[in-house]
Amino acid sequence: MDNRPIGMFDSGVGGLTVLKEFQNMFPNENIIYYGDTKSFPYGNKSKENIINLSKKGIDFLLNKNVKAIIIACGTATSQALDLVSKLYSIPIFGIIEPTVSYIVNKSSLKRIGILGTRGTIKSNAFENNLLIAKPNLDIISKACPLLAPIAEEGLIDSDIAKLAVHEYMKDLHDVDALILGCTHYPLFTELFKNEILPTTEIINTGITLSNYLYSNLNKDLFNNSNNCGNVEIYLTDTECNFLDIARKFLNINTYKVNFFPVFS
Amino acid sequence: MDNRPIGMFDSGVGGLTVLKEFQNMFPNENIIYYGDTKSFPYGNKSKENIINLSKKGIDFLLNKNVKAIIIACGTATSQALDLVSKLYSIPIFGIIEPTVSYIVNKSSLKRIGILGTRGTIKSNAFENNLLIAKPNLDIISKACPLLAPIAEEGLIDSDIAKLAVHEYMKDLHDVDALILGCTHYPLFTELFKNEILPTTEIINTGITLSNYLYSNLNKDLFNNSNNCGNVEIYLTDTECNFLDIARKFLNINTYKVNFFPVFS
Repeated sequence: MDNRPIGMFDSGVGGLTVLKEFQNMFPNENIIYYGDTKSFPYGNKSKENIINLSKKGIDFLLNKNVKAIIIACGTATSQALDLVSKLYSIPIFGIIEPTVSYIVNKSSLKRIGILGTRGTIKSNAFENNLLIAKPNLDIISKACPLLAPIAEEGLIDSDIAKLAVHEYMKDLHDVDALILGCTHYPLFTELFKNEILPTTEIINTGITLSNYLYSNLNKDLFNNSNNCGNVEIYLTDTECNFLDIARKFLNINTYKVNFFPVFS
Repeated sequence: MDNRPIGMFDSGVGGLTVLKEFQNMFPNENIIYYGDTKSFPYGNKSKENIINLSKKGIDFLLNKNVKAIIIACGTATSQALDLVSKLYSIPIFGIIEPTVSYIVNKSSLKRIGILGTRGTIKSNAFENNLLIAKPNLDIISKACPLLAPIAEEGLIDSDIAKLAVHEYMKDLHDVDALILGCTHYPLFTELFKNEILPTTEIINTGITLSNYLYSNLNKDLFNNSNNCGNVEIYLTDTECNFLDIARKFLNINTYKVNFFPVFS
């Protein structure tokens, strides 16, 4: 048993979709969430820049005495996780490996669509890891650079969101599984459903990650308290729609949440 | 006569619309353009953050021995110009004062629409300065947070751009003048034209700024050389669509342009 908090790192509000799924699976874990709203969006930034920003976030979380870190951001997972997991001794998890593990273990999933930011898609991180494990998969990747900004603006149900999702899904109607490779994208789940077959499985990386952690996280690290976990949220810039979006889409009011601006 | 370059500061690619108009007016001036692509977009960042980023950009340009600085960004002008113009002894110009001066001196312009980022609109910088000079103006302001990201994605002519412009223009069809208060917005001029009266004047702040500088910049600072000016472009992050957009929309190939990544 380890009562220290879990650290969660994201570029902004998107990682809250991961936080929500993680809390469903681990309701008594304490969480320190670091949202780098000062540098949002990560999607079009260089690898070097993403690595520097990720190290800053991880250092901040380590100072909060976390026992493990979740990179709840597709772009940071794809660009920085390989390197930072070698630099730090603490366990660090991203959203790609759990999703790849889920897909390759389900034999009915053969034709796979991957949506992500420009950085995530360009890195080929999902695609390469899927093909290493299962070379005969048929994979279509699509960068969706406007979806994260649309989500951060709170325009999830708008006509602009519908049109953007429709455009990005043009070649992806008939996939067996659709990986939402950016943590903002589960906010558009209902719109994605309008563009796919009834049989297509939508992969929410927050869910695959939480299931993976339940199976793979060292049990000594679990918090076995019977109390509901506490959540502290730290933002690097406060002039953003974080709280509005958190309230509107994630029922974040039901958790104990504190906001602490960080000007680094 | 002063052959030193003019410094131009922007959050990314948007300021190139100002650069283009400035070059039309001052073809023999040398220009050092600093595009803070690492921190783009500025529109939703806090005032404190914008001020820090603006100071970094100005310090960079001062090290390049510029003779004056143009803040070619609506958000940085509205949030930081007042302060930084007091901190530095070099002349610093933004896009608001020249536009206000143009509007208040043209008596036919009474009902004014202002488009800008969230930060620019929230600051009320255009509105307050217009009303101080001419209290009876009828002003409607509208934040358009998706337009700059759409422009940076190169989607100027897309259906998404058309829909976004249509949505943002809903209450602005009948204004006498429409101020494009973010330097990205001139890229959407043809789309704005579909939403306004034939008599509405579209105000491109790059043009009002260039005219203002021609009248107000100390003549001793002019470069009177007969040679075509040189342009050097410095970007804080290179993983962006800067060059594509510059080539596609601004005929930037006709200028001498060098790209130097800056990792600060």
